[in-house]
Amino acid sequence: MGAERRNQQIQLKSRPRGEIKPDDFKLVDTPVPTPAAGEVLVQSHYLAVEPAMKGWIEARVDYVAPVEIGEVMRGQGAGVVLQSNHPDYPEGTLVTGSFGWCRYLTSDGKSVPLRKLPAGIEPTAALNVLGITGLTAYFGMLDIGQPQAGETVLVSAAAGATGSIAGQLARIAGARVIGIAGGRDKCEWLVSELGFDGAIDYKSEDTAARVAALCPDGLNVFYDNVGGEILDIALDNLADKARVVLCGGISRYNQTGAIPGPKNYFNLVYRRARMEGFIVVDYAARFGEGVGALAKLLDSGQLQHRETLLQGFDQLPQALINLFSGGNIGKQLVAVDI
Amino acid sequence: MGAERRNQQIQLKSRPRGEIKPDDFKLVDTPVPTPAAGEVLVQSHYLAVEPAMKGWIEARVDYVAPVEIGEVMRGQGAGVVLQSNHPDYPEGTLVTGSFGWCRYLTSDGKSVPLRKLPAGIEPTAALNVLGITGLTAYFGMLDIGQPQAGETVLVSAAAGATGSIAGQLARIAGARVIGIAGGRDKCEWLVSELGFDGAIDYKSEDTAARVAALCPDGLNVFYDNVGGEILDIALDNLADKARVVLCGGISRYNQTGAIPGPKNYFNLVYRRARMEGFIVVDYAARFGEGVGALAKLLDSGQLQHRETLLQGFDQLPQALINLFSGGNIGKQLVAVDI
Repeated sequence: MGAERRNQQIQLKSRPRGEIKPDDFKLVDTPVPTPAAGEVLVQSHYLAVEPAMKGWIEARVDYVAPVEIGEVMRGQGAGVVLQSNHPDYPEGTLVTGSFGWCRYLTSDGKSVPLRKLPAGIEPTAALNVLGITGLTAYFGMLDIGQPQAGETVLVSAAAGATGSIAGQLARIAGARVIGIAGGRDKCEWLVSELGFDGAIDYKSEDTAARVAALCPDGLNVFYDNVGGEILDIALDNLADKARVVLCGGISRYNQTGAIPGPKNYFNLVYRRARMEGFIVVDYAARFGEGVGALAKLLDSGQLQHRETLLQGFDQLPQALINLFSGGNIGKQLVAVDI
Repeated sequence: MGAERRNQQIQLKSRPRGEIKPDDFKLVDTPVPTPAAGEVLVQSHYLAVEPAMKGWIEARVDYVAPVEIGEVMRGQGAGVVLQSNHPDYPEGTLVTGSFGWCRYLTSDGKSVPLRKLPAGIEPTAALNVLGITGLTAYFGMLDIGQPQAGETVLVSAAAGATGSIAGQLARIAGARVIGIAGGRDKCEWLVSELGFDGAIDYKSEDTAARVAALCPDGLNVFYDNVGGEILDIALDNLADKARVVLCGGISRYNQTGAIPGPKNYFNLVYRRARMEGFIVVDYAARFGEGVGALAKLLDSGQLQHRETLLQGFDQLPQALINLFSGGNIGKQLVAVDI
């Protein structure tokens, strides 16, 4: 390896209070690690951000370990094996895994579990529709939401990474799918590119009135990434035996202090409905099934995906911040400048 | 029939605003009806009240038709066939059904569906553990809550009609059962008579601290009849994969205006838990199974039941009002003065 190559990491500097600030992270120069016997050196090409990261760095959740102050920020990445002492991962192999926010890392394939990219799959797709994002949509929508042909499905943050895939999976299951998103361009994308049956721009439309108008027989499934007022509106429009899939609550993540709960939760009784949360890692034993099914839909052209790229390793904190202002369409990634 | 016999009905006079007042009802003298060919004349001996009635008379719910102003109040009763023109129901047959609040009624067995009391079953038990109350506990706890041996189950309003049966069914399923009730006598009854593993007196104890202390591994099932702060506490103490059964929300029923929702609903995500409502009439096709199972548990002495009686037909409005101040242990009934 040439001496000109240097590693960089982004560490958590302080736990955010309210909104995340770029200054909550610290860019650190470190030596490029040398792979030991049985190890490979991986170079990150793309790194992914997701809303759940806020919970990890706030140490507010207990379903995964928090990221500690001074620790390299945790996150999924895709890249290439630059140097190999491991027969399963020869030089040039494209891999994904929980790289963390660093330009280079070493692994024996298990210390940081590495997955090889299937032939013909772009690294960006691997971090989106064939990664944790796609799996979250797959198990959340199909296992918990269980959309049936002819049913009506509403998805919030529908132009986001998970929502855009979840909505398409409901459409493929034969349901009528309505998406809620912020802005004309996102709504246009949902209907014209992804095949949603309707879209509601919460920034310019009366969401409650539009949900009632577009879903006159009520919602059989509500796939929620947002919480807050949008969840209240959905609960007011449930059909009997509805399923409310709690995937995320991005409207909550930047709030401090007490956050009101869904004031119409008791409609779950009147509508004999259920509201259920999930964490995708619980489905780890079925990830193979999920990736296989998603890859097949991708191959057949039934499933679209999109990534929003921010250029430059040092843009990772900003990419994360952008999620909370709805800056992304599809999956927000950072393309590492090499 | 003697001329001395007279009928009385209690009609809805006005829709309550906030708390129900005795004056929301009107006692009306009417002639005793004469059974036509194929009909029987039934005399009410016991009439039942339940919290859900508040929704019916407020016309606030849409899962059943509201009770209209001037209409006889709807409700379950148990009584005897006084006069019969129907071979299936000879004079002296004990029957239950949705009598409404009246001393006498006629039916052909279908116009008001009549069910004969099984031999050896008290009318009071028929209106409680073998009636809608027992069925609500049965399907809510077993179908939705699904308690497993060794799991921890928390029941709110545990000394009430449904809660006391639901908790026992969880105990019989092998779960550890904790009840929340108002007052020492109710708590004492839960533990010493019904076999609950613990009881919390929300009137004199710190409920949050006691739930945490008695359920250190969290709640696998929460069977909720109350809502409000008690639901918040339960959501703070869920175990992974917990089931929250929404049966009632009596803390809400006397409130007017906006009622806060469960502020920690997002714990359903962190705990991959589900919250589900139900309406017992949806299980009508399985009522036979439910009554059979409950009767067997009753016979074998595994299931206890209790009724709180108020004496006098004209006490029906007061009996209903008492439910909302926690006046009853077990099922609140009115014994009709004959």
